[in-house]
Amino acid sequence: MNQELIKEIAITSPDKIVMLVLDGLGGLPDPKTGKTELETARLPNFDALAAKGICGLADPIAPGITPGSGPGHLALFGYDPVKCEIGRGALEAVGIDIELEPEDVAARGNFCTVDGKGIITDRRAGRISSEKCVELCKMLDGMTIDGVDIKVYPVREHRFVAVFHGDKLEAEITESDPSRMGIAPLKISAIKPDAKRMADIANRFAAKAKEILARHHPANMILLRGFAKKPHFPTMQEIYKLNPLAIAVYPMYRGLARLVGMTVARTGTTLEDEFKTLQGKYKKYDFFFLHVKWTDTAGEDGDFARKVKVLEQVDAALPMLTALKPEVLVITGDHSTPAAFGGHSWHPVPVVICSQYCRTDSVKKFSEPAFLAGGLGRIASTQIMPLAMANARKLTKFGA
Amino acid sequence: MNQELIKEIAITSPDKIVMLVLDGLGGLPDPKTGKTELETARLPNFDALAAKGICGLADPIAPGITPGSGPGHLALFGYDPVKCEIGRGALEAVGIDIELEPEDVAARGNFCTVDGKGIITDRRAGRISSEKCVELCKMLDGMTIDGVDIKVYPVREHRFVAVFHGDKLEAEITESDPSRMGIAPLKISAIKPDAKRMADIANRFAAKAKEILARHHPANMILLRGFAKKPHFPTMQEIYKLNPLAIAVYPMYRGLARLVGMTVARTGTTLEDEFKTLQGKYKKYDFFFLHVKWTDTAGEDGDFARKVKVLEQVDAALPMLTALKPEVLVITGDHSTPAAFGGHSWHPVPVVICSQYCRTDSVKKFSEPAFLAGGLGRIASTQIMPLAMANARKLTKFGA
Repeated sequence: MNQELIKEIAITSPDKIVMLVLDGLGGLPDPKTGKTELETARLPNFDALAAKGICGLADPIAPGITPGSGPGHLALFGYDPVKCEIGRGALEAVGIDIELEPEDVAARGNFCTVDGKGIITDRRAGRISSEKCVELCKMLDGMTIDGVDIKVYPVREHRFVAVFHGDKLEAEITESDPSRMGIAPLKISAIKPDAKRMADIANRFAAKAKEILARHHPANMILLRGFAKKPHFPTMQEIYKLNPLAIAVYPMYRGLARLVGMTVARTGTTLEDEFKTLQGKYKKYDFFFLHVKWTDTAGEDGDFARKVKVLEQVDAALPMLTALKPEVLVITGDHSTPAAFGGHSWHPVPVVICSQYCRTDSVKKFSEPAFLAGGLGRIASTQIMPLAMANARKLTKFGA
Repeated sequence: MNQELIKEIAITSPDKIVMLVLDGLGGLPDPKTGKTELETARLPNFDALAAKGICGLADPIAPGITPGSGPGHLALFGYDPVKCEIGRGALEAVGIDIELEPEDVAARGNFCTVDGKGIITDRRAGRISSEKCVELCKMLDGMTIDGVDIKVYPVREHRFVAVFHGDKLEAEITESDPSRMGIAPLKISAIKPDAKRMADIANRFAAKAKEILARHHPANMILLRGFAKKPHFPTMQEIYKLNPLAIAVYPMYRGLARLVGMTVARTGTTLEDEFKTLQGKYKKYDFFFLHVKWTDTAGEDGDFARKVKVLEQVDAALPMLTALKPEVLVITGDHSTPAAFGGHSWHPVPVVICSQYCRTDSVKKFSEPAFLAGGLGRIASTQIMPLAMANARKLTKFGA
């Protein structure tokens, strides 16, 4: 969707939009029953919304393309997920709730093992424990090299994020991770001339890390890759004139929401916490992104029954949301994560839009096969936001 | 679909993809019965695949646009059929199995009739016989002008292909064919400066041809148009990391496959020959383009009954293919050729994708009306390859 066009015709209105995102919502049939997770679950509240709203299936990127969480959510927020790239280091930082300054350069780091000659013998240092990772990160954290402050944050097991904070840092440098064993970590070099300083600092950081970690075999060296700054996207305020709030338990989704300008709510760790946060904040905002992670987790684990159960739990909680009577309610996912596939997949994602003006269809069940007959047909996920905005009467006529 | 994106995320996998292309597959209802060719034919094997797979309708170029064979196939192979142009001369050469060198310039030629003053009186020389064409081409074949070797190949009736082989030839020159009678053939001139030599050679070739043909009325002159080099497309190996094989009886389709880097199999002249070739070569490749021409020929001839019969013949042969159990089977066409229309048409083409992960729909019949309810909905033909790749687990996630 052309955001320039939307920006031109967006207006404010008192109507509220709630976008409920069930991560990895779409599924595949269980080979035993021939029914998908959505078809298997008992979902009276979802079904009622399917009956009330206009339904369809959405492709986050394009048919056949399996989205990561970043592109999947950007598409839902109406951003071209191919053009709006998020560098790996920046996404990793976002994923652990680090707020990057515009000048900061972030990198993904691995603890690794090198032998006496400095040759990599294990790129993941035997997958050290997350506790060990925290301990080692503390040893590397807080260096200053040539006026650049370096923060080191643990992620999980052997993975960490390094953030370089200083003046005139450019992220266009090569990686030290050769992506294979049997050779030494690579020397980092500048891809463009004004990134020379950053390359030099990254090399010096790696050298110091080697000294510090020398006696900590198997984690006696580090590898750095995916150097990136925070991307600069136009905000949802600028494009849609919305005042958006994000409610998400997991840091990755809070971070993604922040990248498009959303305010991020404090919330708890459960589904109920999230819905209560929505109730508490309902008056102050006009757009709500409410993220439910556990559908995806169950799908990733290949646990069909658990995905069904999570869906039923969300269904049971739905009245907390519908009681607020949002003028526009969108329920969809950032991608499919079928339990039968055991990971993110390319299959289009169910989407329903409920509003007074949605022009409902004959669909009565909330499921992939039922939504095939929906009034939305098959759309791109980037088209959901313009539709939500239109239904909330937040888009004026295009042209006279 | 963005080929650059696909190239980034394509990986190899042991899964095999078979793309069975029934040329001109889509049809229109017979006015007497109200049923299309597909609805009229008895197709138990096609129907079984429709029931197993995910079905839909595909637009080769865009709604309303009738494709030629070139764009129709390029779209199926995942190439933007509007951007990936094949010059007329190059396509004509491809169509008669001529393998052009990268530097060669090919042109479409017509034998024509001129009067005593050199004015064109018949642009097609009274549509001389194909035998006469062979005879005349031999007379023009093998000239060398200024170091450029000129080969002349008969096509059919008054049509031939001229191939200019030499150094530093550029194809950007005007045509000698004025596309009307009553004037003399046009002088060919360069459109860009470095094509001057090619223009000069083409003019000298036409002049010599006039001398040689002087006593061969009505074919006493030639007209040249569509000067073009072989286009340079990224290959399917480069984009998809596939090892693709083409099986086609007719030279045009072998040539198109060669343009996108496919290996072309030797095969016989019948449907059975083609399926046997598939069986024989199945182990060595991971992508198979199997082209069936006769559906189109029957449609072009307006022969509804024959198109029905060809469909039933293909259905009967299908077990030879399905016995191989390809992980992904795609059945579609390069365009519609309804017998009731008597030619290529713009109507979207049925497509089915069968795989373990295809997310089947409720379609049980292989026909245009049944496929309207299919899970693929209405897609662009260029999206078929990404979907086939995804189903063969040959595409990794886009973005983290």
